[in-house]
Amino acid sequence: MERKRIFAISGVKNSGKTTLICRLLEIFKDKGLKVAVLKHDGHDFVPDVPGTDTYCQLQSGAYGTAVFSAGKYMLVKQQPQISEKELAEFFPEADLILLEGFKYSTYPKIEIIRKGNSAESVCNPEKLMAIATNLDAEERDALSVLENVPFFELDNAECIAEFILSDYFR
Amino acid sequence: MERKRIFAISGVKNSGKTTLICRLLEIFKDKGLKVAVLKHDGHDFVPDVPGTDTYCQLQSGAYGTAVFSAGKYMLVKQQPQISEKELAEFFPEADLILLEGFKYSTYPKIEIIRKGNSAESVCNPEKLMAIATNLDAEERDALSVLENVPFFELDNAECIAEFILSDYFR
Repeated sequence: MERKRIFAISGVKNSGKTTLICRLLEIFKDKGLKVAVLKHDGHDFVPDVPGTDTYCQLQSGAYGTAVFSAGKYMLVKQQPQISEKELAEFFPEADLILLEGFKYSTYPKIEIIRKGNSAESVCNPEKLMAIATNLDAEERDALSVLENVPFFELDNAECIAEFILSDYFR
Repeated sequence: MERKRIFAISGVKNSGKTTLICRLLEIFKDKGLKVAVLKHDGHDFVPDVPGTDTYCQLQSGAYGTAVFSAGKYMLVKQQPQISEKELAEFFPEADLILLEGFKYSTYPKIEIIRKGNSAESVCNPEKLMAIATNLDAEERDALSVLENVPFFELDNAECIAEFILSDYFR
């Protein structure tokens, strides 16, 4: 059976996706796992670091740049409609690929519901594997999510990491 | 005959490689050409933009990240010993790939010799196609470069661009 390699951390804006992902990355790194993160940006993000040579070259009309050293590389390219699937192919050796966002996708996902930020699940329920939340028990009961979807404490990244790995190696 | 797609702009440190490349990029863009630039960094460059989500994820232990929008993507990846050839393969649709540096390579190249910065050619003479310089005539005569290597005025980016294209379409 093919390993499940792609897992999404979803949630509405400001739910804390990046924060959770960063904590998960530290845990996965300690376990010796190679993890890559893919993020879609609906706006026009700033590619490359302002002030660097490669940034200037992009500003001057290069449609792509790459800078590389002995251990790593950075690549920026104008390419319409590249998909997360195509980007995942750049990381063939990844043990795990985390997607930031992708709440309407059918990737296996954990949704973050953070108190004061949102009070309802908004993800595509297909492959919604768990909810990570700091809502109290009463508020959790009021959520209209499918049965059998477990809840995790939002600040318990260790458990969330274990859960993701259990899905991965299932 | 296969098109010559890769051309280097070489020279010692501070010779003005980035400046010339940026001027060339503007000219090539006006001609409707797709040009990518590859640069080797002997030091450990800063990948990604400090403060962004993907930067934080790299700091937290991701071995790679990618962010993409409708029109472009940026990818950072730890990968030891990737080569300029492998990076060039990311740009299959490029009309031209400019290398910044690579003075000891055997790629066709123009060497910049900028007054006050250097006074000798230091490039591998193989495939040294031209010198771009602001040295005066006497200083040029004193240079020990191969015969038949043409000189261009360093600030005449239009002519340098034409020369590169003439090599490309030869």
